[in-house]
Amino acid sequence: MLPKRPLTVAVLGSSGAVGKELLELLEERSFPIQELRLLASARSKGKMQSWNGSSLKVEQVSAEKFKGVDLVFASAGGSVSRTWCEVINSSGALMIDNSSAFRMESDVPLVVPEVNPDAALLHKGVIANPNCTTILLSLVLGPLAKRYPVKRVVVSTYQSASGAGARAISELKYLSQEFLEGRNPSSQVLPYSLAFNLFLHNSPLNENKYCEEEMKMVNESRKILNLPNLRLTATCVRVPVLRAHSEAINIEFEDEFELYEVNQILKAAPGVELIEDLERNRFPMPTDVTGRNSISVGRIRRDISNERALDLWLCGDQIRKGAALNAIQIAELMLSKS
Amino acid sequence: MLPKRPLTVAVLGSSGAVGKELLELLEERSFPIQELRLLASARSKGKMQSWNGSSLKVEQVSAEKFKGVDLVFASAGGSVSRTWCEVINSSGALMIDNSSAFRMESDVPLVVPEVNPDAALLHKGVIANPNCTTILLSLVLGPLAKRYPVKRVVVSTYQSASGAGARAISELKYLSQEFLEGRNPSSQVLPYSLAFNLFLHNSPLNENKYCEEEMKMVNESRKILNLPNLRLTATCVRVPVLRAHSEAINIEFEDEFELYEVNQILKAAPGVELIEDLERNRFPMPTDVTGRNSISVGRIRRDISNERALDLWLCGDQIRKGAALNAIQIAELMLSKS
Repeated sequence: MLPKRPLTVAVLGSSGAVGKELLELLEERSFPIQELRLLASARSKGKMQSWNGSSLKVEQVSAEKFKGVDLVFASAGGSVSRTWCEVINSSGALMIDNSSAFRMESDVPLVVPEVNPDAALLHKGVIANPNCTTILLSLVLGPLAKRYPVKRVVVSTYQSASGAGARAISELKYLSQEFLEGRNPSSQVLPYSLAFNLFLHNSPLNENKYCEEEMKMVNESRKILNLPNLRLTATCVRVPVLRAHSEAINIEFEDEFELYEVNQILKAAPGVELIEDLERNRFPMPTDVTGRNSISVGRIRRDISNERALDLWLCGDQIRKGAALNAIQIAELMLSKS
Repeated sequence: MLPKRPLTVAVLGSSGAVGKELLELLEERSFPIQELRLLASARSKGKMQSWNGSSLKVEQVSAEKFKGVDLVFASAGGSVSRTWCEVINSSGALMIDNSSAFRMESDVPLVVPEVNPDAALLHKGVIANPNCTTILLSLVLGPLAKRYPVKRVVVSTYQSASGAGARAISELKYLSQEFLEGRNPSSQVLPYSLAFNLFLHNSPLNENKYCEEEMKMVNESRKILNLPNLRLTATCVRVPVLRAHSEAINIEFEDEFELYEVNQILKAAPGVELIEDLERNRFPMPTDVTGRNSISVGRIRRDISNERALDLWLCGDQIRKGAALNAIQIAELMLSKS
């Protein structure tokens, strides 16, 4: 599906938080690249970005620029992905799309390589990279649901500023500094100041009063896990953390379960590390996973309110496993299947 | 139960975050005080605190100091409360205890005045002020449970630094400043740095892997709501917010419920304000409630995973309604019943 030679790769949106991480990870993982093209809107054209020891100029995206490209990582938002999808596909390239544009389309696989790698093989030119909180959740829910049918899931998230992009990270730092110096200017990027504050995720509300971020967790989890009737409710919250997301997860199973076996499943789960130091009362924190590929899971306990339910806690780097790393892992998966 | 004249009041632990707020609120609410005594350990003896236009000297606590006192607010931790409880009671004073020392004792009422005022009348010298997260939760759960029997509750908390005291607030500010300047010193008050970070509540773990804070929510809610078999599970998390707590709450009822009626119940609930601006996607935030007496509730929605369940979100000032205000309201309740 991808040629067996160093690839010509384009990154659409390389200067955002996820785009930058993509470049770093392509280098770090020695992804087989012959030529790397950085594409962006007219606004970012001409900017220089360093990669693998050289300095690359960001070019303005056009149909021409996709000629000869084997693989496109699209990370410039849904409308950009929609605009260029057909051009990319007709140029013969595979598009791995980090936006939400195509995630729920029936002929677009939505893939977490550790969870549903086989789905990727059915692609028709586009593979969608899931929502960040959903990727993290699926790494835990996937292996557990295979062993124990899931009745219902209740999730509360603790999402970092990075999920709203590089400018939101800068704004959190800036507004925190201002606050500490006794000032309280308005936010420009996020709807409210996140400095020593938090708020419910501000994506548009559906009629059912769930926001889009929450509905992504519901719908994308169903698709990734191939559990179309999965019952899941989520409350998504933006917290003043820089770049790792956390989730408090309650999973109710249909039947009885063995806590020991749950631990064994999670210990063996790819992409998952346990941080469970009961003596030191030490469990995952966002700062543990910042810059790390694996997510961390801990405080795995039988729910005191329901013996068929489980409470656990996870933290994962939103920009890495929640976005850039997962996209590259999809590409690596496609390479391995070629 | 309390004399019908201006009272002699002692505050045990007046220089902590809650103690200071107690003094402010006693003034703000024109609590009928004839004499106010500030009592502390030898360490704090001699410190000056201003109150109601005068300057009061902190005195070292001793049996002598409780002579003639009508009412004691104890806010210096469980062991101090245990040490002085008998002396206070035998001096004839009523003790309103902010610590967890006596909360679960069967002859000590645990009171949220809006929820279970009648329980206070059964006191034998001590009335316990509940855990902060539990107070906030009970303001919502109390009125709802009266109308619709509750099957199970799943709560995730977002608890501010204030819950760990004034020194934790200072530490959060200090470590945030250090972080912004490129340094990362270790924490001294909290177990880990809370600067742009968060972690599971670090109270001691029970054998069931719930921490004490979580077990307080379970056990104290049962006592306050007089629902000894209430099924409740909680994940308590410390977040880098200064002084208001938030909670994501999922309530499963035994039977069907009307969402409209739930809204009406919460609108009418004492101590509760709704912040539900759907058009502006605007719901409660910690900064909304900081320094406020009411808690704020919003995003009240029918659970998409279970039509007999409800998701909602609340924020409340941990030091006010979560601690000092509730204690004073208990005293006001006892005055009104005298």
